[in-house]
Amino acid sequence: MGAYATLEDRFRRAALIGEAAGILSWDRAVVMPDGSAGARAEQMAALRLAGREILTADDMADLLDATAEEPLNDWQAANLREMRRAWVRAAALPPRLVEARTRANAACEMAWRTARPASDYPAVLPLLEEIARLTVEAGQALSAALNVPLYDALLDGFEPGGRSADIDPVFDDLADFLPGFTEKAIERQAARPPLPLEGPFPVERQEALGRRFMAALGFDFDRGRLDVSHHPFTGGATDDIRITTRYDEADFLTGLYAVLHETGHAQYAAGLPAQWRHRPVGGARGMTLHESQSLLIEMQACRGGPFMAWAAPLMADAFGADGPAWSADNLLALVTRVARGFIRVDADEVTYPAHVILRYRLEKAILAGDLPLADLPGAWSDGMDALLGIRPPDDRRGCLQDIHWYSGAWGYFPTYTLGAMAAAQLYAAAKAADGGLEPALAEGDFAPLYAWLRPNVHEQGSRYSTGELIERATGRPLDATAFKTHLAKRYL
Amino acid sequence: MGAYATLEDRFRRAALIGEAAGILSWDRAVVMPDGSAGARAEQMAALRLAGREILTADDMADLLDATAEEPLNDWQAANLREMRRAWVRAAALPPRLVEARTRANAACEMAWRTARPASDYPAVLPLLEEIARLTVEAGQALSAALNVPLYDALLDGFEPGGRSADIDPVFDDLADFLPGFTEKAIERQAARPPLPLEGPFPVERQEALGRRFMAALGFDFDRGRLDVSHHPFTGGATDDIRITTRYDEADFLTGLYAVLHETGHAQYAAGLPAQWRHRPVGGARGMTLHESQSLLIEMQACRGGPFMAWAAPLMADAFGADGPAWSADNLLALVTRVARGFIRVDADEVTYPAHVILRYRLEKAILAGDLPLADLPGAWSDGMDALLGIRPPDDRRGCLQDIHWYSGAWGYFPTYTLGAMAAAQLYAAAKAADGGLEPALAEGDFAPLYAWLRPNVHEQGSRYSTGELIERATGRPLDATAFKTHLAKRYL
Repeated sequence: MGAYATLEDRFRRAALIGEAAGILSWDRAVVMPDGSAGARAEQMAALRLAGREILTADDMADLLDATAEEPLNDWQAANLREMRRAWVRAAALPPRLVEARTRANAACEMAWRTARPASDYPAVLPLLEEIARLTVEAGQALSAALNVPLYDALLDGFEPGGRSADIDPVFDDLADFLPGFTEKAIERQAARPPLPLEGPFPVERQEALGRRFMAALGFDFDRGRLDVSHHPFTGGATDDIRITTRYDEADFLTGLYAVLHETGHAQYAAGLPAQWRHRPVGGARGMTLHESQSLLIEMQACRGGPFMAWAAPLMADAFGADGPAWSADNLLALVTRVARGFIRVDADEVTYPAHVILRYRLEKAILAGDLPLADLPGAWSDGMDALLGIRPPDDRRGCLQDIHWYSGAWGYFPTYTLGAMAAAQLYAAAKAADGGLEPALAEGDFAPLYAWLRPNVHEQGSRYSTGELIERATGRPLDATAFKTHLAKRYL
Repeated sequence: MGAYATLEDRFRRAALIGEAAGILSWDRAVVMPDGSAGARAEQMAALRLAGREILTADDMADLLDATAEEPLNDWQAANLREMRRAWVRAAALPPRLVEARTRANAACEMAWRTARPASDYPAVLPLLEEIARLTVEAGQALSAALNVPLYDALLDGFEPGGRSADIDPVFDDLADFLPGFTEKAIERQAARPPLPLEGPFPVERQEALGRRFMAALGFDFDRGRLDVSHHPFTGGATDDIRITTRYDEADFLTGLYAVLHETGHAQYAAGLPAQWRHRPVGGARGMTLHESQSLLIEMQACRGGPFMAWAAPLMADAFGADGPAWSADNLLALVTRVARGFIRVDADEVTYPAHVILRYRLEKAILAGDLPLADLPGAWSDGMDALLGIRPPDDRRGCLQDIHWYSGAWGYFPTYTLGAMAAAQLYAAAKAADGGLEPALAEGDFAPLYAWLRPNVHEQGSRYSTGELIERATGRPLDATAFKTHLAKRYL
């Protein structure tokens, strides 16, 4: 076997072990008994170690160098680039540090699960400080290996090639734009409040409705599942894409839109290039693009008028309801309400970027040593006041609300808003390319939308950088223009 | 780290990878979508390879030898013996042969799934011949490494240390004893046929009843699950023991006794020595002992009078039923009916050994080259006639019924009947040790039974051979005496 083929085989094995870990993660969130958590953590650690050992074998550098003498086509060259990228990141971190982070992240996350409902930030502070210390240590090692600033080296783990120098001006611009825009949108909506829906909404009917919409989106139930978990997510493995939601009998829209959001993720995973499966170039490009695909479905398509024209009667029918509250206009008003709130995951698309920008700025300051973690609650409150004009009454609704930092995920947050921007830009390009796209949505037909997304986004896998892919697909670099245009059109 | 500690660490990692594969197997049987089968097979193969590589690392022989200079206590010495055993078996087989068997087994099993319902043995014959050829090749390699006959080398994979020279006389004796005994039992039962139960029996109520009995047996639902699959099994991992059953609304007893059987397996797994978890000595001793624990619960305890005195009212209550058909005596008669049938998994405990002896004799003859696979259907029919006095009308109810040979499991079958013998002998010893054991069962109290099984069987893990463990627990070597006494007492 040549060097390239040897590398492909090894990365394939590592990918398959990663998929096994994906099924175990799904299992932990959906079916695992509580008392199995300790044993499961050990199984997951053993899988991570087995995958890591494949990627950091002593002869990897030699193999990567030896490929220089082999002729590779474009896809293979891109695959080699991604293999090298994965190796550089894996080899940069000493095993001792990887193990210390795994332990620290697990300990802190466990403490956070108790500290959050109790709103007890001091209880988790020392564990979070240890995570931050180890994250900086890892960031320094990655920074040296990748030759980028520390924050970018962490961001790169979620968004390959992402640069804070590109993000800062965009987020600064949004931070200026959004407060005034939010004010206007709220005022405008206050003049015409939507009619409330009368529940209860039985869980079985909610699930049936969700499955109906998943089918319309093209979800393949022979290669995937819909289940229930505490937080909605998309997981699973190749040919086995599993999404979750949760149901509230008093409010079916939240669970239903979680289904639509996760189906967007799922359809991206299902549309990745099959001939490159289990190879790095065949994988998802990064969290920005992944989030763009969920938000494109949830926010751009399914909170829009054409979709609702088709969906409103199905919603009413699912619960045997009728009347003016179930009109397409009223349902649309319900799913596009803007409100300033404390909780990111409950935020609408107008206020959501404020939550993200706050976290992005705070995590950069913490990692740079400019904000001691002991001062985080105050800085959080001040930031919320500046960006959204509200102050959380406690840390449960403040700096304790998200799992990310407490489980070791630093540098992740900006991808949410980059994803929202990409969703708007991609959806605008798709509409411009096919004038029949929205009329089809009004018939519940997503085929034209996916006919554009498949070749332009999904089937490209990780062949290009996120920036290149978006520029090829939309004709221009990623920025906030389309997102702002979308918000103005929908809310003003 | 010393050599022994290094070995322990490696086997721990291999065990954890094996547990991950256990969860994936459960998932495949219980929740996986059909279209994911191909990807799942690749994930499982990657996990097997990762585990195998740990066990066959180049320095394993040196490490095992180096332990000679380290002081080990009894348990450590037993653990070392088991580690060496696992290494000898793994190292005996060249990777090429392991891979060829994996492929051949998967291809044949897939063909068998179609051939069985179609009763089309010729369709699967060439694939089965390939499996037999590779099984003989593996058996020869293992035979040379273990210095035992070929059949014993295969049997050893399921029942460590098992020897056909010990099994032959016991099975010959049972083959002489059972035909006449079966005849008498059937005649005796014909004189007093039990009253049938009137269904339907709703699935939810069957499940609730099964959970009620699992709880009485001590099953920990915080560290395990009950689900549904095509064939009942016990799987999962440490602290996460998962059993399955299947429900028939016309007959609740079959599904319920499957729950009791699998709970017996589960409680053995849950009772293994916690301080030796993820080490070979802390694992189940073998299939004979595993089957003894399921059959002890299902056959010895739960098809007996004391248990039924407690269970009968619960069964009636579960379905809101009453009348003479629901008396303990009638229910007991229903769950101890003897009948000559074609299908092993539907057989009662009196005729079951005939099915096993037939398969044991046939697989020995096939592996020895004395029976061409093309002649298997005729030999099967003749064997059924000789042992049970019936001839299957087709191969679906003959040599195509069991998955074992078609998935590469040769040398497994005798453990079913060895397990039945061990169950009878262990149960008799437990009753002799504690006269209050059966009176407690009549109150639904399994604590005295498990108070004897835990220290005498479960907590011994793989410290002793199966033969040694049974002799220490019961005072005598394993034989069929207690099994025959049990049958005579219950059926004559």
